[in-house]
Amino acid sequence: MTFRAATAEYEFILKSIIGFDQISETERFGEATPDLVSAILGEAGRLCDDVMAPLQRGSDLEGARLENGVVRTSPGFADGFKAIAEGGWVGMNAAPEHGGMGLPLTVATAVNEMMAGACLSLQLAPLMSQGQIEALEAHASDALKALYLPKLISGEWTGTMNLTEPQAGSDVGALTSKAEDNGDGTYAISGQKIFISWGDNDFGGNVVHLVLARLPDGVPGTKGISLFVVPKYIPDEDGNLGRANDLKVVSLEHKMGLHGSPTCVMQYEGATGWLVGKEHGGMAAMFTMMNNARLGVGGQGIGAAEGAYQHALNYALERKQGRTPSGTIVDHADVRRMLMEMKADLFASRAIMLANAHALDMAQATGDADWKTRAAFYTPITKVFGTEVGMRVAETGVQVHGGMGFIEESGAAQYYRDVRVTAIYEGTNGIQSMDLVGRKMMDGGEMAGRLMDEIEKFAEHSRARNPNMTDALWSACEALRDATDWMVSQDMGERFAGSLDFLRAFARVLGGYYHLKAAQADPGGPREKLARFYMTRMLPQYAAHLAAATAGSENVFALSIDELAN
Amino acid sequence: MTFRAATAEYEFILKSIIGFDQISETERFGEATPDLVSAILGEAGRLCDDVMAPLQRGSDLEGARLENGVVRTSPGFADGFKAIAEGGWVGMNAAPEHGGMGLPLTVATAVNEMMAGACLSLQLAPLMSQGQIEALEAHASDALKALYLPKLISGEWTGTMNLTEPQAGSDVGALTSKAEDNGDGTYAISGQKIFISWGDNDFGGNVVHLVLARLPDGVPGTKGISLFVVPKYIPDEDGNLGRANDLKVVSLEHKMGLHGSPTCVMQYEGATGWLVGKEHGGMAAMFTMMNNARLGVGGQGIGAAEGAYQHALNYALERKQGRTPSGTIVDHADVRRMLMEMKADLFASRAIMLANAHALDMAQATGDADWKTRAAFYTPITKVFGTEVGMRVAETGVQVHGGMGFIEESGAAQYYRDVRVTAIYEGTNGIQSMDLVGRKMMDGGEMAGRLMDEIEKFAEHSRARNPNMTDALWSACEALRDATDWMVSQDMGERFAGSLDFLRAFARVLGGYYHLKAAQADPGGPREKLARFYMTRMLPQYAAHLAAATAGSENVFALSIDELAN
Repeated sequence: MTFRAATAEYEFILKSIIGFDQISETERFGEATPDLVSAILGEAGRLCDDVMAPLQRGSDLEGARLENGVVRTSPGFADGFKAIAEGGWVGMNAAPEHGGMGLPLTVATAVNEMMAGACLSLQLAPLMSQGQIEALEAHASDALKALYLPKLISGEWTGTMNLTEPQAGSDVGALTSKAEDNGDGTYAISGQKIFISWGDNDFGGNVVHLVLARLPDGVPGTKGISLFVVPKYIPDEDGNLGRANDLKVVSLEHKMGLHGSPTCVMQYEGATGWLVGKEHGGMAAMFTMMNNARLGVGGQGIGAAEGAYQHALNYALERKQGRTPSGTIVDHADVRRMLMEMKADLFASRAIMLANAHALDMAQATGDADWKTRAAFYTPITKVFGTEVGMRVAETGVQVHGGMGFIEESGAAQYYRDVRVTAIYEGTNGIQSMDLVGRKMMDGGEMAGRLMDEIEKFAEHSRARNPNMTDALWSACEALRDATDWMVSQDMGERFAGSLDFLRAFARVLGGYYHLKAAQADPGGPREKLARFYMTRMLPQYAAHLAAATAGSENVFALSIDELAN
Repeated sequence: MTFRAATAEYEFILKSIIGFDQISETERFGEATPDLVSAILGEAGRLCDDVMAPLQRGSDLEGARLENGVVRTSPGFADGFKAIAEGGWVGMNAAPEHGGMGLPLTVATAVNEMMAGACLSLQLAPLMSQGQIEALEAHASDALKALYLPKLISGEWTGTMNLTEPQAGSDVGALTSKAEDNGDGTYAISGQKIFISWGDNDFGGNVVHLVLARLPDGVPGTKGISLFVVPKYIPDEDGNLGRANDLKVVSLEHKMGLHGSPTCVMQYEGATGWLVGKEHGGMAAMFTMMNNARLGVGGQGIGAAEGAYQHALNYALERKQGRTPSGTIVDHADVRRMLMEMKADLFASRAIMLANAHALDMAQATGDADWKTRAAFYTPITKVFGTEVGMRVAETGVQVHGGMGFIEESGAAQYYRDVRVTAIYEGTNGIQSMDLVGRKMMDGGEMAGRLMDEIEKFAEHSRARNPNMTDALWSACEALRDATDWMVSQDMGERFAGSLDFLRAFARVLGGYYHLKAAQADPGGPREKLARFYMTRMLPQYAAHLAAATAGSENVFALSIDELAN
């Protein structure tokens, strides 16, 4: 397996699809010139190709394990993380004030995605730190920032995110972990947290946990939750590591994939913690972190798809079988069809993800509410579509391999197993879709409408050169408008019954929009051809999704539990 | 996990959907009365629930392994296979002449499917024997039949199927294994075969290999291939085991799933074999075996889907989360949607599979060419749709479990990993779809047309009670007619570029037909409600598939290899 980061693809999307220039023109990101971004993507690509990708297979075979309460990571992971940290990639979009590169999130998102393609389980480590850095930057006191941020940004320390408890998964508000005021500015944290990705490591530094817990006067539900920073070792003011805190890794989960990432059950036994943000304001702080983490997980799906695609293409070019011009299976129509579908959806999902990051950067740089709303609208779409593309492309990658796809040595199966979790963690895809049709459409569909206006406005200009593609996209967009109108006229019960299909349809249309943009930017070239494939063979899926999206809840609940069981 | 074979479901489909009475009314299957079939399904169901299902998880944890050249099977598998054999299930549809039960294949197919749901990797062992029994019944000499069939049918011996070689997968004709006439009625077989399911076991009996090899005067390609029976131990005329034959298991594959099934690399070193059928007539014999094996593999996908569905439903009923009427996640709209989709596709695929088996039985019982053609047309649809439903339902089953779905202990992941191979082996789904639009439509679309006539004829009768469902199915059927006309007007290059999507659309329409039948048979009941869900939310997918099916090959081959890689 030879993984090559798709650097040219990111550059094309930044330049010709999402208009990265707009970001470079802001004061906040003025230093992020196209040349700099190009250099950065190239450097990150080399790290992915040369350092991370070679760790992928070994981490599946020798996953993280727990030895006497200490996590031992996969072979080469400590050095791999060190290389990531030394390259500055952990803190690439963190504020320069504490040592970050201060790059736009758009660039960081591209880098995270390529790292996910190279080695998903290792990539998750810096991704967790990035989420923590962001939450601390936004909500922690200056003292906490000064102590923790430089170490997290440099990669000397790593960060985790502790939300889930056995009885509190999607329903975070049900958590029972307790926090008590020690009276000295610290709190005593007690409880059990599960599914803690990278909850420990042997990279040599501190492991800093962000933990949600409830103070004695915290009301039930999400409004009574507070956020605490709880380090594995308690640091002094200069960041020197002191005594071990009262917390431990109880066990690691045996997972279907992502073996290189230690998924920990954590026990807090009166561990010392420091409040982040306000008392009972934990969910607000977590939301900051979660929104970008969702973008990041969407990128994990897309990265895994890139890895799976390259893997499958390489196999198809090497596997001799049947009488074809090249003698290999790549000339078989159905193999080519699979590769084209993979490539077309990779582009569509990647463009959506980078447009999402672009909107976040513009929101940060300009403070403009429209950008913020737009970014919030895109986030569940990036997460769901990115991870569904990840699953579908990895599944197809196995199929391209034929019988070898089911054999672990081929490496195709690992993508299929690893990527599966991305549709689940960081808010299941079902929860994401409820967020889209619920919270993100509380505006009566205004943001959705603005996006569709933008799509149709662009389509007007593309009609001359690409009438068929334009017509197809236009029709899809109009149908999506009708479905959006239907959605916002319904109560939540009706919306939720069609939420995932609505999201899928929206993603298909957005994908069509970006493909059309690519076609217009590359007349007669491969991007126009790929767009035509997408418009003809994949965009039409929107109609079935919209039929399901607007079918209402009656059919969904038509069977009783007894009838479901028989 | 408590698996319960869906016996009532098979009985409903047999009685009310496919018209099993028709089979009972033939002379050949006159003894297979509804009462007998009911008793048989019940008995098989108890074996699945009590004996096989408890072996499922253990076989994943402790898969088959090779010790000093001998396969050691998973804990309990030897006893499990013994129970299957003693129940007569290996030879349930074999001729009574050699000890078979002589049941219709329709019943055997239902039993195989429920066994697949209980424990897929163990179920594959009798399935392989059944294929061999069938090939020997159809093509072997009386002497070979007398020696091998009673032992295979009783389960004392087991059978395997040796086609694939490293350079000859989908392209069987490329095989290089050699056979030489020993001059004493036997042949010396040499070569390496890979992906041999259940290539060895420790069940105590003989392992009988059916091996494709080329005689010295065999022409290149499939027309020069002959079929041989090559036993692990050479039996005397009475079936007593003699010396070990010159063959060995070189290694077992490390697979993503199906760990309980030993997938062997076999080496034949001048092993003694006996010719089955005529010299150079091996492919004809293998086709007999492969056609029903394809039906069987479709059933494996559906069985795994049933297991995954029950597993997910159980979890949804137990998992407390959020504020819902029951307090569990089963009341969440998106969870309910997932369960409904799983159940609706289970019914659709199972009805297609059993209609397929029914046609085979009728062909056997009546000799009528129409039944034979119909069965042949259904076979690739059963295989592809059954295994795609298997993959999709298993994937959804993981999703219903949320975070627990990714943890192996929950058991949901095993279905997801195990079922993946069914879309690949026994002819990849891509190969199946080429078979449908190629060989199976050499009649200019006549068989397809007859099926659509049948669907529309039935729809006429259902319009009064179910106008909306009827309209939806009618429109889909008309669109399928147009696409069929397009297909048969094209050369193979064009057909193959849309073959899988064409098959998927055909399956969606057939699924709609059987759902409508179920609705008519259960007015106001759960089957009508499930049909309405399917028609509203799932049938519409046909349109996107037909758009892709008829888009032609130009888009598929639009990108050069270099453009695919960049």
